[in-house]
Formats: sequence, structure tokens, C-alpha cells
Amino acid sequence: MTEATHVLDDDQCWELLRGEEFGRLAFHLAEEVHIAPVNYAVDHQSLLFRTAEGSKLLAVVMNPDVAFEIDTYDDETARSVIVRGTARLLEEDEAHRAENVPLRPWVDADVKYNVVEIIPTKMTGRLFDLSKPWTHLRP
Amino acid sequence: MTEATHVLDDDQCWELLRGEEFGRLAFHLAEEVHIAPVNYAVDHQSLLFRTAEGSKLLAVVMNPDVAFEIDTYDDETARSVIVRGTARLLEEDEAHRAENVPLRPWVDADVKYNVVEIIPTKMTGRLFDLSKPWTHLRP
Repeated sequence: MTEATHVLDDDQCWELLRGEEFGRLAFHLAEEVHIAPVNYAVDHQSLLFRTAEGSKLLAVVMNPDVAFEIDTYDDETARSVIVRGTARLLEEDEAHRAENVPLRPWVDADVKYNVVEIIPTKMTGRLFDLSKPWTHLRP
Repeated sequence: MTEATHVLDDDQCWELLRGEEFGRLAFHLAEEVHIAPVNYAVDHQSLLFRTAEGSKLLAVVMNPDVAFEIDTYDDETARSVIVRGTARLLEEDEAHRAENVPLRPWVDADVKYNVVEIIPTKMTGRLFDLSKPWTHLRP
């Protein structure tokens, strides 16, 4: 790791995760790896997202091994949090948890949503200084 | 798919891919799925990124099945492109291809970089209207 890269601790990762609402989920679908943008919310020490019936839902039921990523950046720094974890479909009597967090669909959809929980097993956060490396590229 | 979601054709996907330089790579590492932010550039009909020796490189050499995602959004719309494809390490005599595209590391790193190419096998682009769904949430 270079001097321009800084490791974030778990608290800093959770703070970033709580501050965003849009990330990307990577999951297995049969032998393939897939990735999809998802709206999510932090609920205690886990992440919740909604999904209609379909490949994401089928995928995590068949293979709960997932990875999740968020990132934010401006001109000077980039911050990324990567979560490895286990996904599970919430039971009907748990799905109300999604009502208590700011988990809003970005597009209006008249479909039934299932709530999936990602329980992190490993979390990695990085802050990258972006200002320095450009300087040597400038004429 | 709801009225608020629009499918992008391949040309529109390539245009979005050429317009960005930062995406997320999902890959297999043994039995696990992993995700990592990467800087990339479009070179003809493929994507190039650089990586140091490490898990990303090992992963795509061991299992070339990958997925890649970019997204951009503003207050009114979100656009996302998802690429499923095959990754391969460029040979030494091909690595110069990375010199001809705007593939710049975001952080300064004094390490040898390998160039990996992703050849898309399937591309999916979506544009989401974000303005409408919020209205019903407003008091």
C-alpha cells in the first residue's frame, strides 16, 4: 500500500455506509459472478436492501456468499468500503425492519419487494489521496 | 420493468463507458465473490485496467469470469451499465495498448502494473427516472 492510501477502521466504514444509500452488490448466479446497483440502508450491524422476484433474489437464496461496495469521491480524495458477507432473505415477520430505516426505492415500482439482509463477515475501507499522483502527469 | 426505467442500447452503453474512468469489478476468488473499485479505459470493444500483483490478478487468471459496473447519477436520473465478460492478462507485447488510452492510476504507486482486458460477452444499460418516485414521499 502506498503513502497515498489510508486504511479506514470499522467505525469509519460504518459511518461511510450510513452516509450513503446506493451501492453495488456482487453475487453468484450458478457459476457466474454478477453485479447490480442497489439501494440499501444500514440497520444495526447489517445492510438491508429490497429486491423484486428475480435473479438477485434467486441468487442469494441459492448462494448467500456476496460482496458489496460503496464509494464516494471528490477532487482530492476517494473513499471506498468493501463488505464481504452473507445474504439472507428476511422472513415475513422480520421484513418490518425495512420500514424503520431510510430504505427508499429510487424508482417507483408497483411490485412486491422482498427484503434481503447482508451480514458482514469482513469489511475493508480505504481512503485514497488523489491530488498528488496527477502532478507528475502534468506538463 | 416500470415506466421509470429505460433500456439503453449497446451504443449508449459504450458512450457511457467511454465517458467514465472509474468502475467496480466483481470476480471469483476461489469459492468467494469479490468486488473492487478499478480505474479503467475503453480500448475499442474492450475495457482495460491495471493491477498490481495480488488478489485481483490471481483471481482473473484462475477464473476469467467477471462482471463490471459503472453508474452515474444526478438529481433526476441514474444511468448504470453492467458488463458481463471474460478477463485476461495482456501479454507483454500487448501491454502498450494501455499507453494509448486514458488509463491513469488514481493513486501514485511505485509498483509494476499488469494490464488486464475485459472482453464483454453481455452488456446491459439502464436509465432510471428518479424524479417521480420521490414526489409521493413528500408530505
